Amino acid sequence: ERSYKVTLLPGDGIGPEIMRVAVDVMQAVGRREGITFDFTEKLVGGAALDALGVPLPDDTLASCLESNAVLLAAIGGYKWDSNPPHLKPETGLLGLRAGLGVFANLRPAVVLPQLVDASTLKREVAEGVDIMVVRELIGGIYFGKPRGFDVNETGDRFAFNTMVYSTPEIDRIARVAFETARKRQGRLCSVDKANVLQVSQLWRERVTAIGKEEYPDVELSHMYVDNAAMQLVRNPKQFDTIVTGNLFGDILSDISSMLSGSIGMLPSSSMSESGPGLFEPIHGSAPDIAGTDKANPLAQVLSAAMMLRYGLGEVKAAEIIESAVSSTLDKGYRTGDLMSAGKTLVGCTQMGEILLDAL
Amino acid sequence: ERSYKVTLLPGDGIGPEIMRVAVDVMQAVGRREGITFDFTEKLVGGAALDALGVPLPDDTLASCLESNAVLLAAIGGYKWDSNPPHLKPETGLLGLRAGLGVFANLRPAVVLPQLVDASTLKREVAEGVDIMVVRELIGGIYFGKPRGFDVNETGDRFAFNTMVYSTPEIDRIARVAFETARKRQGRLCSVDKANVLQVSQLWRERVTAIGKEEYPDVELSHMYVDNAAMQLVRNPKQFDTIVTGNLFGDILSDISSMLSGSIGMLPSSSMSESGPGLFEPIHGSAPDIAGTDKANPLAQVLSAAMMLRYGLGEVKAAEIIESAVSSTLDKGYRTGDLMSAGKTLVGCTQMGEILLDAL
Ligand SMILES: CC(C)[C@H](C(=O)O)[C@@H](O)C(=O)O
Ligand SMILES: CC(C)[C@H](C(=O)O)[C@@H](O)C(=O)O
Repeated sequence: ERSYKVTLLPGDGIGPEIMRVAVDVMQAVGRREGITFDFTEKLVGGAALDALGVPLPDDTLASCLESNAVLLAAIGGYKWDSNPPHLKPETGLLGLRAGLGVFANLRPAVVLPQLVDASTLKREVAEGVDIMVVRELIGGIYFGKPRGFDVNETGDRFAFNTMVYSTPEIDRIARVAFETARKRQGRLCSVDKANVLQVSQLWRERVTAIGKEEYPDVELSHMYVDNAAMQLVRNPKQFDTIVTGNLFGDILSDISSMLSGSIGMLPSSSMSESGPGLFEPIHGSAPDIAGTDKANPLAQVLSAAMMLRYGLGEVKAAEIIESAVSSTLDKGYRTGDLMSAGKTLVGCTQMGEILLDAL
Repeated sequence: ERSYKVTLLPGDGIGPEIMRVAVDVMQAVGRREGITFDFTEKLVGGAALDALGVPLPDDTLASCLESNAVLLAAIGGYKWDSNPPHLKPETGLLGLRAGLGVFANLRPAVVLPQLVDASTLKREVAEGVDIMVVRELIGGIYFGKPRGFDVNETGDRFAFNTMVYSTPEIDRIARVAFETARKRQGRLCSVDKANVLQVSQLWRERVTAIGKEEYPDVELSHMYVDNAAMQLVRNPKQFDTIVTGNLFGDILSDISSMLSGSIGMLPSSSMSESGPGLFEPIHGSAPDIAGTDKANPLAQVLSAAMMLRYGLGEVKAAEIIESAVSSTLDKGYRTGDLMSAGKTLVGCTQMGEILLDAL
């Protein structure tokens, strides 16, 4: 009997509803596979702000660090939108990422055959898209210093941020990306803005060097971020694995996931050098539909599967969950976000029950 | 008889071919409308590097500054890709923008009814898209200081860039954007990353203030850049006018133009406080097809029309050119980039001749 400590962070909006489904599914699979989960639920984001006045309580981070893995749902909402920066839910998320040291964020964007019509792209463009975006998550302009506000010689206010990467930061994310590409189609596209930014010039130099020295078998290409954004719309199938910095990764992974037309289906993982990984859906907290039982829990369930596979090494349990999701889609069950003619509309709770039946 | 000094910058790749067509068209319209053009051709980008060793010769910038308007084709090519940064064609372009002070870059993305099938988006998503991206062009991380390379306490190399905006820089681009939105559907979406970046927080504060004080009639909304990139793919018709900083504008305007499926059709204008404007196609120098007579000259021709309309105030001449382009498309003539079944394939030169006939 294997046992794992997992910290659950339901967060805000639809977070608690979809987390409930994921927990039920994990427990069912655990019973079947002889896995015990020691779940601890903690507050983060808006929920933590409301209860404790901070977006990331010390106790939450401590629990995460003591766990084998962390499963997050979603954070944020209109309610805290006008809070000062240090009291925003997002600040809690950034603190959590930094606190866990999860520098490597993997965001898959797959167009599932059952859902190809949900894409706004033409069928022939969308069909077969399978991209993995490897995003550096705890560096770059998100955390770079100096940052802040000041007044210049002419008496005008100005604000500034620093985009910065060091060679060890670039090297370690490059290695994760090359390893990832090797397990996929063996093609890696590094995205930067080296025609304008010095930080991109160093990025390109290091990724090129790591590729040449350590991964000569992986086909490496480079693309400017504006062109990459465009190529994702023009011909997404040209991409296998993409590696890029924090800001460009934020933008490109959102485009990639939208291509699939089913952002409610996509999980993500964030890994550190040796500590627990952080697993979460790509979508947000959807405050507009929170509490209405309309949310799609599948990205959360697939994030749990990703946690089992990459965070806990429980590949079999992950596969069971993934095929339950697939067979549920095959049977035609859809939440509102993916609904189309001829399918059966279900709510969040019912989708959970159908998944449990399918297990 | 009106007379204008115009500096022509054919640049690299397909630049000279498409510029030739635009010049013929302008001259034909000029004869008809009693406009004389005093054209001066100058070197920029790779062409200037080859001839003079610098990407922006002083003489080129001086000629531009003495003109009523500047018409650029495209710069860059593989040939100069491994040059050091200060000897890259792009550095010439950035120097030209800064030297002319053209802070406001307007990039329209329109899905033409004749070309809706060229988009990779489904017809019902693409049809009717008409977006104007107003991009700040001479500030932000493109020009921010400090920038460069250094070594940190642990002996590791690092590189850094600064994203910076001051209130006057934000205010002047915001005003251009509000004015632009007012002449369109009256809706402006300001794009930033205010949940992470201080510079975006100041951006949002100032755009909001200018809107409230000076443009209460324009409907203002705000969107994070990752979401905006995603929404452009999900439902581009929700956008009328977008305003954003230099880096985000680079990315979003490329996505917008790709949505139209006809990047070979899209012009852009860049305006300063009071000096000559800079007009250029959105597409690049396409070195792979340079010299093969395959280039689409229409974006260059429409850039000339934009120059006539916004740079020289010759609205009638602009309209004549625009309707010649439209009727040429109606007649079914297409260059390779836009070719589809049932249309007539033509080269760059022949497209020019057909346009002259249509005038
Ligand atoms: C909420 C926000 C801070 C976050 C980010 O920008 O990283 C989100 O967009 C994401 O991609 O996870
Ligand atoms: C060539 C490059 C420097 C330029 C930019 O990034 O501004 C281009 O991408 C553009 O959008 O005009």
